[in-house]
Amino acid sequence: MNLDDLPIRDDLRGKTPYGAPQIDVPVRLNTNENPYPPSAALVADLAEAVRAQAGELNRYPDRDATALRADLAGYLGHGLRTEQVWAANGSNEVLQQILQAFGGHGRTAIGFEPSYSMHPIITSGTNTEWIQASREEDFSLDPGKAVTAIEEHRPDIVFLASPNNPTGTAQPLETIAAILAAAPGMVVVDEAYAEFAREGTPSALTLLPGHPRLIVTRTMSKAFAMAGTRLGYLAAHPAVVEALLLVRLPYHLSTLTQTAARVALRHRAELLGTVDALRRERDATVTWLRAKGLAVADSDANFVLFGRFPDRRKVWEGLLERGVLIREVGPPEWLRVTIGTGEEMAAFRAALEGVLL
Amino acid sequence: MNLDDLPIRDDLRGKTPYGAPQIDVPVRLNTNENPYPPSAALVADLAEAVRAQAGELNRYPDRDATALRADLAGYLGHGLRTEQVWAANGSNEVLQQILQAFGGHGRTAIGFEPSYSMHPIITSGTNTEWIQASREEDFSLDPGKAVTAIEEHRPDIVFLASPNNPTGTAQPLETIAAILAAAPGMVVVDEAYAEFAREGTPSALTLLPGHPRLIVTRTMSKAFAMAGTRLGYLAAHPAVVEALLLVRLPYHLSTLTQTAARVALRHRAELLGTVDALRRERDATVTWLRAKGLAVADSDANFVLFGRFPDRRKVWEGLLERGVLIREVGPPEWLRVTIGTGEEMAAFRAALEGVLL
Repeated sequence: MNLDDLPIRDDLRGKTPYGAPQIDVPVRLNTNENPYPPSAALVADLAEAVRAQAGELNRYPDRDATALRADLAGYLGHGLRTEQVWAANGSNEVLQQILQAFGGHGRTAIGFEPSYSMHPIITSGTNTEWIQASREEDFSLDPGKAVTAIEEHRPDIVFLASPNNPTGTAQPLETIAAILAAAPGMVVVDEAYAEFAREGTPSALTLLPGHPRLIVTRTMSKAFAMAGTRLGYLAAHPAVVEALLLVRLPYHLSTLTQTAARVALRHRAELLGTVDALRRERDATVTWLRAKGLAVADSDANFVLFGRFPDRRKVWEGLLERGVLIREVGPPEWLRVTIGTGEEMAAFRAALEGVLL
Repeated sequence: MNLDDLPIRDDLRGKTPYGAPQIDVPVRLNTNENPYPPSAALVADLAEAVRAQAGELNRYPDRDATALRADLAGYLGHGLRTEQVWAANGSNEVLQQILQAFGGHGRTAIGFEPSYSMHPIITSGTNTEWIQASREEDFSLDPGKAVTAIEEHRPDIVFLASPNNPTGTAQPLETIAAILAAAPGMVVVDEAYAEFAREGTPSALTLLPGHPRLIVTRTMSKAFAMAGTRLGYLAAHPAVVEALLLVRLPYHLSTLTQTAARVALRHRAELLGTVDALRRERDATVTWLRAKGLAVADSDANFVLFGRFPDRRKVWEGLLERGVLIREVGPPEWLRVTIGTGEEMAAFRAALEGVLL
């Protein structure tokens, strides 16, 4: 009796679970976590907030997470109101709810690969058909070609990661606007890494007025350094949030998650204070890798895609042997390194030099 | 611009979000919460556990929640091992993952109504077709008719709530065994209320050996008094857990949820210590309602279904006017009251006497 003997969905047969290896090594630069732990002050505030709330844990949470959504709207700015914001257990669950509301059997979603590998996985997990469109050789997106692909396939949902994962580069607003004009259905701009973008990179949030089919997703797992809290969120027209209420599992967001996210938002000056250091470290990493003669994609995120290695597995393993875990993901011959602390990036550089000797 | 103008899935049109009204009244007996709040000792332990973990919240949680699943296996007993247990954000998410793995477009799930209303909703939310079979007039399930319905429809998934919600009665093991023998696919026994069952009611966990297509789901929201934590779980053959790993969203269970659930399991003697009092209060409620000449379904849960009221809405509103919120749910002419504290049930009885005068 094993998995193959069970009546699982046909398209799951032969698949393996998604996820980077969770390996305990000195330097973990593989899942785009923020390397800076919460401060002692945040930890104390969180423990106190949990203590204050825990006496009511026998009761269900606020099903609509209203206070948290108000706080998130305040953080995002752009005049957003509570009813334009929605939150779930990680942006993965936000994306799944979008697909449950606007996708499903007989509907399609398109993405421009290489991009976030969970987009096609969650699409398939909701019985939605995935259409794979492509980026240019340099991982940029040609707006004309993107519009042509959308006009050809008439997808119900367009996914666009900006900054893109795993390549790192943000989209110009003009490209997003062109896609919005062409798309017959919903357009999801996945801004998980928005806070890390280079100066002068505007958010797709600025396009929300007048675009009721635009959804901008965010997460507290990256710049906010709260990956363990699992809080993803989105901003959109209030009607989009109403649609998601039809498919969200009731009480999907625990009291503890709502509480922790609100504490983190109160500490946002401290948490986002790490972003500048990470950007500097990122830009230095890009410069160093290029000086080594390697190809490096421009990065607006807290990671850098570099290559090209005809045997990337060997490079990945060589780094791991030296205690540095990065990610073997994305286009063949490329590897992705998350930006860690100065010490971690020094360890990465030393390890990579050892491997490339 | 409103919800109707958006390209939502056709079968969502005209729907309203699921959920009991969240109304702030003195006596809340509507969502089957445990009325006893966690003790000061549990609250202190939880705050301390969060403080100890929070310094690593910048890191993703254990994606497989291994330590929590080991603790849950230990609690369930029956010789269960970690690899036979799975957990998610409430049993709703557990059920959704089961449907994503074993249901989907072109597949069917059957349930015997009246039963838990989320079963058909989550089924539909995963593009699975719902087949509605029926219980007897007294809400019992005739095993012969259940087997006939399964043989006729050949469903991919059978849902069986035991104790059943909203009617309250548990199924004899013989019925579950007969369904297991007839079902061509998976059989899900939803035991959300198992800890409240009357003496001598065995769990479907006893049927797991030799039945690799049986899944028994549980929750910490009811007897464990942890509704705010949102922790549902299941026990099954290890291959079933492997199947769920193919559809679970990575890192679906936050560090905080894993931590809080483990703290609650350590305090299980205290938490489950409320069960006896709630059973006594439930049995007294059944007796009192019957003495009033009302019809009452036998209850193995922490709620009681009673009727019949040709205008149940009027009774529900009359109770609400008197500060007592119960649930208008299930078969027409019936109402469901959650078992609260002795004081809350006294308030319920007084309010109902006022309404029925």
